[in-house]
Amino acid sequence: MKDKVYKLIELTGTSTTSIEDAVEKAINRAHKTVKNLSWFEMVETRGNIAKGKIDHWQVTIKVGFSVEA
Amino acid sequence: MKDKVYKLIELTGTSTTSIEDAVEKAINRAHKTVKNLSWFEMVETRGNIAKGKIDHWQVTIKVGFSVEA
Amino acid sequence: MKDKVYKLIELTGTSTTSIEDAVEKAINRAHKTVKNLSWFEMVETRGNIAKGKIDHWQVTIKVGFSVEA
Amino acid sequence: MKDKVYKLIELTGTSTTSIEDAVEKAINRAHKTVKNLSWFEMVETRGNIAKGKIDHWQVTIKVGFSVEA
Amino acid sequence: MKDKVYKLIELTGTSTTSIEDAVEKAINRAHKTVKNLSWFEMVETRGNIAKGKIDHWQVTIKVGFSVEA
Amino acid sequence: MKDKVYKLIELTGTSTTSIEDAVEKAINRAHKTVKNLSWFEMVETRGNIAKGKIDHWQVTIKVGFSVEA
Amino acid sequence: MKDKVYKLIELTGTSTTSIEDAVEKAINRAHKTVKNLSWFEMVETRGNIAKGKIDHWQVTIKVGFSVEA
Amino acid sequence: MKDKVYKLIELTGTSTTSIEDAVEKAINRAHKTVKNLSWFEMVETRGNIAKGKIDHWQVTIKVGFSVEA
Amino acid sequence: MKDKVYKLIELTGTSTTSIEDAVEKAINRAHKTVKNLSWFEMVETRGNIAKGKIDHWQVTIKVGFSVEA
Amino acid sequence: MKDKVYKLIELTGTSTTSIEDAVEKAINRAHKTVKNLSWFEMVETRGNIAKGKIDHWQVTIKVGFSVEA
Amino acid sequence: MKDKVYKLIELTGTSTTSIEDAVEKAINRAHKTVKNLSWFEMVETRGNIAKGKIDHWQVTIKVGFSVEA
Amino acid sequence: MKDKVYKLIELTGTSTTSIEDAVEKAINRAHKTVKNLSWFEMVETRGNIAKGKIDHWQVTIKVGFSVEA
Repeated sequence: MKDKVYKLIELTGTSTTSIEDAVEKAINRAHKTVKNLSWFEMVETRGNIAKGKIDHWQVTIKVGFSVEA
Repeated sequence: MKDKVYKLIELTGTSTTSIEDAVEKAINRAHKTVKNLSWFEMVETRGNIAKGKIDHWQVTIKVGFSVEA
Repeated sequence: MKDKVYKLIELTGTSTTSIEDAVEKAINRAHKTVKNLSWFEMVETRGNIAKGKIDHWQVTIKVGFSVEA
Repeated sequence: MKDKVYKLIELTGTSTTSIEDAVEKAINRAHKTVKNLSWFEMVETRGNIAKGKIDHWQVTIKVGFSVEA
Repeated sequence: MKDKVYKLIELTGTSTTSIEDAVEKAINRAHKTVKNLSWFEMVETRGNIAKGKIDHWQVTIKVGFSVEA
Repeated sequence: MKDKVYKLIELTGTSTTSIEDAVEKAINRAHKTVKNLSWFEMVETRGNIAKGKIDHWQVTIKVGFSVEA
Repeated sequence: MKDKVYKLIELTGTSTTSIEDAVEKAINRAHKTVKNLSWFEMVETRGNIAKGKIDHWQVTIKVGFSVEA
Repeated sequence: MKDKVYKLIELTGTSTTSIEDAVEKAINRAHKTVKNLSWFEMVETRGNIAKGKIDHWQVTIKVGFSVEA
Repeated sequence: MKDKVYKLIELTGTSTTSIEDAVEKAINRAHKTVKNLSWFEMVETRGNIAKGKIDHWQVTIKVGFSVEA
Repeated sequence: MKDKVYKLIELTGTSTTSIEDAVEKAINRAHKTVKNLSWFEMVETRGNIAKGKIDHWQVTIKVGFSVEA
Repeated sequence: MKDKVYKLIELTGTSTTSIEDAVEKAINRAHKTVKNLSWFEMVETRGNIAKGKIDHWQVTIKVGFSVEA
Repeated sequence: MKDKVYKLIELTGTSTTSIEDAVEKAINRAHKTVKNLSWFEMVETRGNIAKGKIDHWQVTIKVGFSVEA
């Protein structure tokens, strides 16, 4: 097997419900463009607040995928 | 519009159920004192354990809100 | 009361469902070997992806427990 | 002279013009409430963008001031 | 409103005059390709020196923009 | 028991004698205003020097205390 | 000379032989798509293990290249 | 001389008196199990507070010791 | 397949020849005790010097391996 | 061309006017002693405050210069 | 008053007795060469162990002093 | 034996061949000026690229050596 090379892209997913959902939304979006997503790493979790409630979770991740040699 | 200034305070919310719930508890508490909360950032996630089970999630966040000029 | 000493071990729990579940799985496993687990700290959250879906959440934690003097 | 104790507060100043102006705005605002500000440390520099232009610089600082013993 | 997903790209802007100008140059360039830039974060500030003078400020930023779902 | 929320404040204690004394001075001062201090974390240790001797230790800590829900 | 703007991309190169080889593999791959690569910075070095032997070195780098103004 | 391999373990020592004493307590405890301790590195200093006084210093260290090849 | 749990241990490998060799020595040693090593991450690279020459490379890694549930 | 070696020194420049001016003052001073300064990296930005105004910006940089082999 | 420039040097002081003593030893030594030492910052605390006892505390500090313009 | 004090200097070694070679070049150079070099720590690894090939590895290290009391 050839030595692979991976590219990492950084995305912020948002969700009104949970951290996991925000990560999944980012990965779903990336999957529309890149088919062979391989792993992710969480970088930062933030959110905006409206009227004392969390409006959106904002979770920044790096997503890695193999690029053809 | 005038250039705004924001203050950040640091809080640790606790919850027996989830990370999200701990963050919400911290924001709910802050909202009792400060009405115009604007955003938060997660700083640290810890927890205490009792009898091999997670007793409380302890999530430290910074919360930002606009202060009048 | 004597001054206690604690040991910290580092574990990566995995889960197909959530970050909290991955942490709990790691703590459950540690509890099989060490009975007096006291606290944990989250270190890193990653995951692997299969067919554009999160396959497993991989959450690395440090777990602390008292060691007898 | 007695050993002093200082408190640090965290503020985000914003400005349409420069990083320095954002820091000064935060310090001006703090000075309205606290008279003996002593030093600051820059923590983070961000900004929002509108139509391809920087709309506001957002500079987060810690400001320290002596508290009476 | 749908939950948005944002992409972050990393750029180094350079300028002979100031940090702010280097950031603006990077954002101007990004705006040629991506129309809906939303925010930036400063990552690192460096520069090269020639004959004891700053030749170019080199400021690395992350720029975030919404990607269509 | 209700899920508690804690607030963290940041203080710099100073002392001519030791790191521990600087931390204690900061905690003593905080205790004048807030009665239920719960824990602290050291953030940074600095000091100023006069005539080749340490004049004051300057130790920055975060102090956490429970806030009523 | 105009003030240049650079883009940074993040790649993970892999190699069965050495850290340097993993970095070179990532740069070779990037060079197929982008001709004017200018510099790189190492971000992280990991690897997978099989039967007690290092199977692949996995080295994550950022690579910078000039983008036309 | 053969190339040595060292293991690092992480411990939190506690003390009512000083940071140094907390470190020594952790090392004393480790020495009961492992005879050839070689070095330590301080990782974190925290403490709990009772009635406005430091109750226990909690100092986390890594301790390294040679393991037989 | 059950959700796995992994343990991470920290080791410092030393070598007179190269960084890679120091990492391999640490992994070889770990493999004597733990058969199912899965991955490693480099934490720190140091070395001691004798007579102006590198005497030993000292590379600290974390090694992860699956623990039975 | 021979492989060069560079030395980095750390300086704090101060200025009543701007961050850029503080960096330039540090570089100007270094240039009096070392002629072949090559690059700098900003490490930290702080400042002291007098009567609610920034008295001096204090910017710490590392400056690199080639040393003859 | 002219805008001052400061130089920072990094030193590791050692002591058989305490962290404070190790810092003082480093500052005493620096004072032999440089008369106008102004401040220090602690960077790292380590130590070596012999027969289960701390042999030497090793405390690395940065020391800043004004350089003539 | 007296308590020693060490000085740390920061150097960037460069090499067309390997990371290890870049570190050795930096140490060789330091040894020309300072005879009792004791240890080093790697700080950062970068490099410049020419025509899609690594031109020079640039490895920044801190080197420590004992200074006479």
